[in-house]
Amino acid sequence: MTTPAAASPAIPLRVGVVGLGWMGQVHARAYTRVAQHYLDAPLRPVLVAVADNAGDERLARAVAAYGFADVHADWRELVARDDIDLIDICTPGDSHAEIALAALAAGKHVLCEKPLANSVAEARTMTDAAAAARAGGVLTMCGFNYRRVPAVAYLRQLIADGRLGEIRHVRAVYLQDWITDPQFPLVWRLQRERAGSGALGDIGAHIIDLTQFVTGQQITGVSALTETFVKERPLAGGSTGLSATAGGPDGGAPTGPVTVDDAALFLARLSGGAVATYEATRFATGHKNGMRVEVNGSLGSAVFELERLNELQFHDATRPGPEQGFTRILVTEPEHPYLSAWWPPGHIIGYEHSFTHQMRDLIEAVATGTDPRPSFVDGLRVQLVLDAVSRSAELGSSWVGVAPVPAEVPA
Amino acid sequence: MTTPAAASPAIPLRVGVVGLGWMGQVHARAYTRVAQHYLDAPLRPVLVAVADNAGDERLARAVAAYGFADVHADWRELVARDDIDLIDICTPGDSHAEIALAALAAGKHVLCEKPLANSVAEARTMTDAAAAARAGGVLTMCGFNYRRVPAVAYLRQLIADGRLGEIRHVRAVYLQDWITDPQFPLVWRLQRERAGSGALGDIGAHIIDLTQFVTGQQITGVSALTETFVKERPLAGGSTGLSATAGGPDGGAPTGPVTVDDAALFLARLSGGAVATYEATRFATGHKNGMRVEVNGSLGSAVFELERLNELQFHDATRPGPEQGFTRILVTEPEHPYLSAWWPPGHIIGYEHSFTHQMRDLIEAVATGTDPRPSFVDGLRVQLVLDAVSRSAELGSSWVGVAPVPAEVPA
Amino acid sequence: MTTPAAASPAIPLRVGVVGLGWMGQVHARAYTRVAQHYLDAPLRPVLVAVADNAGDERLARAVAAYGFADVHADWRELVARDDIDLIDICTPGDSHAEIALAALAAGKHVLCEKPLANSVAEARTMTDAAAAARAGGVLTMCGFNYRRVPAVAYLRQLIADGRLGEIRHVRAVYLQDWITDPQFPLVWRLQRERAGSGALGDIGAHIIDLTQFVTGQQITGVSALTETFVKERPLAGGSTGLSATAGGPDGGAPTGPVTVDDAALFLARLSGGAVATYEATRFATGHKNGMRVEVNGSLGSAVFELERLNELQFHDATRPGPEQGFTRILVTEPEHPYLSAWWPPGHIIGYEHSFTHQMRDLIEAVATGTDPRPSFVDGLRVQLVLDAVSRSAELGSSWVGVAPVPAEVPA
Amino acid sequence: MTTPAAASPAIPLRVGVVGLGWMGQVHARAYTRVAQHYLDAPLRPVLVAVADNAGDERLARAVAAYGFADVHADWRELVARDDIDLIDICTPGDSHAEIALAALAAGKHVLCEKPLANSVAEARTMTDAAAAARAGGVLTMCGFNYRRVPAVAYLRQLIADGRLGEIRHVRAVYLQDWITDPQFPLVWRLQRERAGSGALGDIGAHIIDLTQFVTGQQITGVSALTETFVKERPLAGGSTGLSATAGGPDGGAPTGPVTVDDAALFLARLSGGAVATYEATRFATGHKNGMRVEVNGSLGSAVFELERLNELQFHDATRPGPEQGFTRILVTEPEHPYLSAWWPPGHIIGYEHSFTHQMRDLIEAVATGTDPRPSFVDGLRVQLVLDAVSRSAELGSSWVGVAPVPAEVPA
Repeated sequence: MTTPAAASPAIPLRVGVVGLGWMGQVHARAYTRVAQHYLDAPLRPVLVAVADNAGDERLARAVAAYGFADVHADWRELVARDDIDLIDICTPGDSHAEIALAALAAGKHVLCEKPLANSVAEARTMTDAAAAARAGGVLTMCGFNYRRVPAVAYLRQLIADGRLGEIRHVRAVYLQDWITDPQFPLVWRLQRERAGSGALGDIGAHIIDLTQFVTGQQITGVSALTETFVKERPLAGGSTGLSATAGGPDGGAPTGPVTVDDAALFLARLSGGAVATYEATRFATGHKNGMRVEVNGSLGSAVFELERLNELQFHDATRPGPEQGFTRILVTEPEHPYLSAWWPPGHIIGYEHSFTHQMRDLIEAVATGTDPRPSFVDGLRVQLVLDAVSRSAELGSSWVGVAPVPAEVPA
Repeated sequence: MTTPAAASPAIPLRVGVVGLGWMGQVHARAYTRVAQHYLDAPLRPVLVAVADNAGDERLARAVAAYGFADVHADWRELVARDDIDLIDICTPGDSHAEIALAALAAGKHVLCEKPLANSVAEARTMTDAAAAARAGGVLTMCGFNYRRVPAVAYLRQLIADGRLGEIRHVRAVYLQDWITDPQFPLVWRLQRERAGSGALGDIGAHIIDLTQFVTGQQITGVSALTETFVKERPLAGGSTGLSATAGGPDGGAPTGPVTVDDAALFLARLSGGAVATYEATRFATGHKNGMRVEVNGSLGSAVFELERLNELQFHDATRPGPEQGFTRILVTEPEHPYLSAWWPPGHIIGYEHSFTHQMRDLIEAVATGTDPRPSFVDGLRVQLVLDAVSRSAELGSSWVGVAPVPAEVPA
Repeated sequence: MTTPAAASPAIPLRVGVVGLGWMGQVHARAYTRVAQHYLDAPLRPVLVAVADNAGDERLARAVAAYGFADVHADWRELVARDDIDLIDICTPGDSHAEIALAALAAGKHVLCEKPLANSVAEARTMTDAAAAARAGGVLTMCGFNYRRVPAVAYLRQLIADGRLGEIRHVRAVYLQDWITDPQFPLVWRLQRERAGSGALGDIGAHIIDLTQFVTGQQITGVSALTETFVKERPLAGGSTGLSATAGGPDGGAPTGPVTVDDAALFLARLSGGAVATYEATRFATGHKNGMRVEVNGSLGSAVFELERLNELQFHDATRPGPEQGFTRILVTEPEHPYLSAWWPPGHIIGYEHSFTHQMRDLIEAVATGTDPRPSFVDGLRVQLVLDAVSRSAELGSSWVGVAPVPAEVPA
Repeated sequence: MTTPAAASPAIPLRVGVVGLGWMGQVHARAYTRVAQHYLDAPLRPVLVAVADNAGDERLARAVAAYGFADVHADWRELVARDDIDLIDICTPGDSHAEIALAALAAGKHVLCEKPLANSVAEARTMTDAAAAARAGGVLTMCGFNYRRVPAVAYLRQLIADGRLGEIRHVRAVYLQDWITDPQFPLVWRLQRERAGSGALGDIGAHIIDLTQFVTGQQITGVSALTETFVKERPLAGGSTGLSATAGGPDGGAPTGPVTVDDAALFLARLSGGAVATYEATRFATGHKNGMRVEVNGSLGSAVFELERLNELQFHDATRPGPEQGFTRILVTEPEHPYLSAWWPPGHIIGYEHSFTHQMRDLIEAVATGTDPRPSFVDGLRVQLVLDAVSRSAELGSSWVGVAPVPAEVPA
């Protein structure tokens, strides 16, 4: 047996995850991926403990699979541990603020899944707490993972480099269809008190953040309408991820009111002069994860589609006329963002690696003491738009302005 | 020399065309195509005369190419002729009402290009006149040619047959980019007094009519915003179709204000419960004729794209789950609308044949004395939506209802 | 009534068509299109007479629709007329040589549909006759219409300009599925004595000519296999175009042997060093008119697909790495071949206009006394490859060289 | 702290990996993925040790990242350990046979990367050894990972269920472009003594195995040609994965002969009556990982493309005519093969998970004592075809039959 030249042992980043549902597991896997794909990452994430009160076999298996040492039924115990550096919050939105404030108070770095909170008020308490904690070297991040899809990061880079010129149009949809069946049960995502809103906050939040991210502009006002197509649903039995089973036999099952939007549509203006349409819906039959974002500028255009997340369509209007057209760029070259650590060109990556890249960037930020993005303020910005959309919809589509948020360091 | 079994000589339909610009020529060609592709059409269109005051070589060549016997500089002379059955109006929108009213008064059938008029008031005088003339057997039609694209007609049929179930979403864009260059001159299409509106009336009108046509529903209200990105342009030298040259040297050329919208975006509700987004723009860099219409229903979805007009994407949600997906239907089978008269499957047709089919349907209607569609009332319906969009945009995106129009025979 | 500036009356080109089946009608229409779209074409085609012995109502209607003055049951009468300049041969391949030789002897220009003949020997008599007639100013053309699809012509131009560099690979398929049903009857296209070969000569001929055309190279040798999947079929009742009905009731109908290939596959080498695969089949379920040609060179690649004939996919390997990809060029810009005469960008054209452009080029050649392409020699070149493919297939796929044909003026 | 219901501790499967280059790392990651995604897998892979003589920093980092306990410079030491159950061979093809034979002799299960060997003779010794070892309960598997792409497994299932009917055509290409630059150096993959062959064995092997797998048929004979476009290249400095740097300055660098094929093309017949074309090349400019496999049958067709590996295009010819077309199935539904363990529909997976699934199936086989597929005999079958292709190419494309291999249990 021989020993190869020793690799310098990486410093551990000790992680505690709150909520080991499907999103919590996605995060847990991502931490292990970073170490395997970014061999020179400055910190090595260690999955120390998880807080989750499910107490069932499924949880036990997950805990074992990811190698967590401990499980706490109460997240407060997790936050209180002194052998944890980072609290990663993967619970529904109604608990984000409380957990994040406690973790910051305990001096932990915090990664909080999107949406940052279920209300602007909560989000503001979180950004305030984050700003206060920052003085003590504590970092915060809001988890809009799609910023880390290489094609999205590349699109941002193209726009920042002026390749699209002055942005005129943004066109963003996030189309899903998992509740088109009226017998689909009343899971927590369909209840306002748990989820805050429906398609709007769940998937609309993604396209709001993503378009603000790639354009470098903020939404300044909106005109919106929302709709709930199926107003009453069977009470839920159990659910996991985006699937669930109804609680009782067809027809005889007790039902409850759907208190969130099935679909949210809005027009918007952006701070740089662009006009935009946005649509988030769970009733777009045939679309499973149909996020599509298009940006048209004076010098070019680009289109990103999540179901083909390794591709970017780019139209360069400065090319000779007869050769112009949308170019399907396979964003798998080593020069593309994040991809130097991956396999040869053309070997595609999947959804999960938006999280791998997120964790890599977070680790980099912690190692260097710089602020990771998206910040809690970025999360607040999204929350402000969500809030304006809801109010505009309540006001019969009247225009509602979005208050500007003080500048940060550019994302 | 032998004589084949004699074909019964078809009865002529004598046509006079007002305006032999590029749209007038598209119509002229379409009349000759009908006779060649629908060998058993009940009437044979004859191009009798044209009214156009261009008086130039280009006009002379066009007149010769299509075989018109005469040219009138004044359309009133054309309308006054007693050897013409049908007046086909292909001039800009500001002259539609006057010409149509005169033609109807002269007892001619009238085909009027879209949009029906430049205002609701004008459109109402036209529908009133049409209704009055109808008593005397005179027929009227408004030229929304895209209804006659086979894939569009097939989509309407699928929806009418219930294959999409209850319609939830309509998503319609018409994207062009021919005036993104700020040096593109101030042609008539950019002047409110000639064109009525900009992208809204020119191409937005198409997606309004098309979505109302395929869904069988009417838009009941809108929230809109419009934008003019380039507010001042060089005065125009000459123009033809959608191309033009500026009137003077770069920089030194006299300029004038653009008085129409470059882009119009709106949210809408439809009479059957669907919600919708619409966007018409001439600033979508990279899109030449980018009409795209998607409809999502409880049982299925469909997508139509004009640049691939021989295709329809259809998702049938009643199929077994693992086999579901959008099917690219090449709408070139003999069972598809209009296609029995064409070539073998897979041999595609072009833009022009939406007009060929339009003329075929018009001829059929005249031959049988039935009302062709789209009617002037259909044109009025579009005008009412255009008007509501304009008003909503002026009112800061406030919701503006669209008055219902009394029912006709179904389209 | 006013008279516009007079258009100079174009000189007529008097056309006689042999065979007014569906291909003959496609040609007839194309002549009328030229006059309507290329207003400044130097000659004006006039449809003088047709030779066709069908003698039925369908023929009578077609004759009337295209305005032929006379019909001859015997093509010899047509060829004998002294008021005809051009004989256009649209009959099955077994009659091409006889008709063409007679027409050339009578001093007529000849346009002969592809394939030029059913054998190399026939093709050689035709090229010899063409060369002899050329001395007297008589011109000949072989009708490989797909050369005139704008995207194909543009591809040739890109390759000729060196944009693809040294050509390494050609990959061509022509996939149809119209006889996958074993009950489809034994039409003339399935009989060797009429059609010469099956998929090979019918559609394989197209991809042979097209790839030689776009690359500017000739096939120098092949290794082939052919297959007839359905060896016996019901005798045909009647047929038109690519559809037909079986002659009798299912099961009880008399049948006959299929004497042509259902599919032909071959490997090839080209004169410039490229290697190639070719496949022509009528058993590619789901493909209606699925011609697809791809060319890979040292500097770039391109893909053409006939069912989307307005598009060309172009990959430019000289662009910056991260921006590379296949660009979907919508070949509808005025700078693209043939398109200056058409409508605004993005308004697509159909299959038929490959013939319109063919007739335009033929008219141009006649007017200027230059040799139109593809020539009879081009037709012979295809015939030599077809012959080599057949022989290789008979020899168990052994390599069969293709004799070079003396150089002409470049196409 | 609470303890959730305990998960039964899984039995370990102790793995030793030979060669921790990029393929070895892909395998190492895959073992860790199984445990995270298939929480109920019957065995838990443990990465015990690796054999690799690189001895550099890169190797040290990789060893640490995947948690191997030990590193051996000599693979014989690894094979000799008694705490290892499975030897996973990820070295170039010239060493496969020796390592595999030793491992089998030591009573280890063996997973051997494709191609099984560099010659038929070696492959036969391996299948013989595997058969002998099987008696002692030792299992063997050959690593054609693409069988485990869900869309591929689903395609096989559709064909096995008769959904495509009788298979008529197979059309398979594997297109890459990573050596189009003549300055790309002479890496081991371009040397016959290391790699056995070029594009043929490297990527052609994949499409041979994959098409035999999905159709359930074997190739019975071939006619082939191969080409080496760039015959001399700079000697290599170092290489990793598919990238490398030349050993010296441009121009002055010493060069060596390329002794493998750059491209291999062949026609084939399959045991069930289908005819086929195959092409593998590293000179298809613009294609990075362009595997595309199409199968046409009497009842339907399907297309798989590796760069969009989450999709399958399926054409069902038994549907009503006007609704037919290729359906883009997003193979991410829980009913699809392998996907029950993944995230919600529409959230795509990447290249790496073909290996995750491979390891899952291997673990399942070991746990149940059943034979995993592809077996060494499957690997031999591919080797026989590769050999026939090489011989046909040497014989000027003459037809070369492929000897049948005795039947096994169906894959």
